Amino acid sequence: MAPEIVECVPNFSEGRRKEVVDAIAAAISSVQGTKLLDVEMDANHNRAVVSFIGDRRAVAEAAFLGARKAVELIDLNVHRGEHPRIGALDVCPLIPISGVTMEECVAVARALGERIARELKVPVYLYEEAATRPDRKALPDIRRGEFEGLREAVRTDPSRAPDFGAAELHPTAGASVVGARAPLIAFNVNLGTPDVNVAKKIATAVRESSGGLKYVRAKGFALKDRGIVQVSMNMINYKGTPLFRAYELIKAEAERHGVPIIGSEIVGLVPLEAIVDAADFYLKLENFKVNQILETRLWD
Amino acid sequence: MAPEIVECVPNFSEGRRKEVVDAIAAAISSVQGTKLLDVEMDANHNRAVVSFIGDRRAVAEAAFLGARKAVELIDLNVHRGEHPRIGALDVCPLIPISGVTMEECVAVARALGERIARELKVPVYLYEEAATRPDRKALPDIRRGEFEGLREAVRTDPSRAPDFGAAELHPTAGASVVGARAPLIAFNVNLGTPDVNVAKKIATAVRESSGGLKYVRAKGFALKDRGIVQVSMNMINYKGTPLFRAYELIKAEAERHGVPIIGSEIVGLVPLEAIVDAADFYLKLENFKVNQILETRLWD
Repeated sequence: MAPEIVECVPNFSEGRRKEVVDAIAAAISSVQGTKLLDVEMDANHNRAVVSFIGDRRAVAEAAFLGARKAVELIDLNVHRGEHPRIGALDVCPLIPISGVTMEECVAVARALGERIARELKVPVYLYEEAATRPDRKALPDIRRGEFEGLREAVRTDPSRAPDFGAAELHPTAGASVVGARAPLIAFNVNLGTPDVNVAKKIATAVRESSGGLKYVRAKGFALKDRGIVQVSMNMINYKGTPLFRAYELIKAEAERHGVPIIGSEIVGLVPLEAIVDAADFYLKLENFKVNQILETRLWD
Repeated sequence: MAPEIVECVPNFSEGRRKEVVDAIAAAISSVQGTKLLDVEMDANHNRAVVSFIGDRRAVAEAAFLGARKAVELIDLNVHRGEHPRIGALDVCPLIPISGVTMEECVAVARALGERIARELKVPVYLYEEAATRPDRKALPDIRRGEFEGLREAVRTDPSRAPDFGAAELHPTAGASVVGARAPLIAFNVNLGTPDVNVAKKIATAVRESSGGLKYVRAKGFALKDRGIVQVSMNMINYKGTPLFRAYELIKAEAERHGVPIIGSEIVGLVPLEAIVDAADFYLKLENFKVNQILETRLWD
């Protein structure tokens, strides 16, 4: 049996005071069964991105403790940074990785949002797969006006009332956005040409926004030091559009330009299933199960 | 970091008395850190094959306890079965799966062999990668004459002296063969033709014994119920010859016969690396590391 893994990537409105970010990360790590993967601070954005994994129970508890610590230590009234934000815990996505469904992550997100609102007095908006209204799926729509603008709007505009909590921002911690989404895979394909227009054309052909593959965001870049170009993609739902499908479409488009694929890269982390899906496709495997992988037996 | 996983697949000369096999499996499972994967009994062979995993320490201890229980409960003087055998614990291969080298498994095999000989008074022969002489790499050479023949030969023929212990078989438990080998992957490729000769010709082309790929054993079969044929392979060293290379060679040979590959299957267990290698090859991944797979973070 695959282990139950939920990834959680909360964004906090603090990217300068390391002691604050450390305290938040420590609160998250204090929950047994969570594993901290990464903590990134950006001083210009004045924002920290923490990522950790665990089962539903551990992740929900750890996300709550991180939120509580952030509410305690961050004051939006004095926060300045380039990145839009409405709260101390600004946004908190839950991501099903293995042994757990999207619906189950949505349920965790809603329970977590309800608890944050009730115990921390921070109003919560649900977004992405956990959204309760179509106009709340996208983060920018919820965050419009940021902390300062939303503080006024929430009192007067019923359409901006939170999903949980009062129609009144927390005086220092603002509001939080909690939800669930599919894992994002950063997948780049390198093409053997110095002509960046080829990469741009292919990016246009493969990405959803201009008519290509659903769940694919793509841009064309030059990799000047290597004298080649790259189609840089965010695969926002690898079950809907797997890596190999994007790769094969790029290959077909590149052939039309007489250009070979010379390599690809996965930046950062990837769920095991996305890798197995590629092996499965190319080897035409019949009935292969992830639990045939020896290492997964350690998880039983 | 990948977890340290050694697989151990001891074969015991008992395939009829379930209580004996259960007692051996219980002795193996009693060691903390071992995970029993499978126990198979065959009454005709009068033989049981146990497979389990763990780190080096746990596997060595569990294999020893399994051997001790087998020595206690199995008497080769009354053992009859179709499968050749020389001892109660007949053969015990150690297999590096992850986070451990072949050389380290060879060292474990030698220490385990020495301990079995010293504490259980069962002479031990080292085989495969742990062999101390070229003529002891292959199991059939060591097992020649079986328990009854070896019992006499070991006393008189110095070339048959064990690697550990006296030149005298244990009166009831015989001798044991201990060693290390690469994991074996059972990989079958299905071809869209009813002509079994195509599968046989391709098997001849790809297998090592007739000039093809090193570390590949292959036979051609008809899958009568599906009206197709199959090249059935044992990949005895997937690092030396990976799955995708055998697949691509079969594809090329099949094209020459105008026959498509219609599927493949991995029977039983496979190390994660063998699957990652296939994805890596077909997607032309640059610098992909197994620890980019999210699930492996649970192992840290």
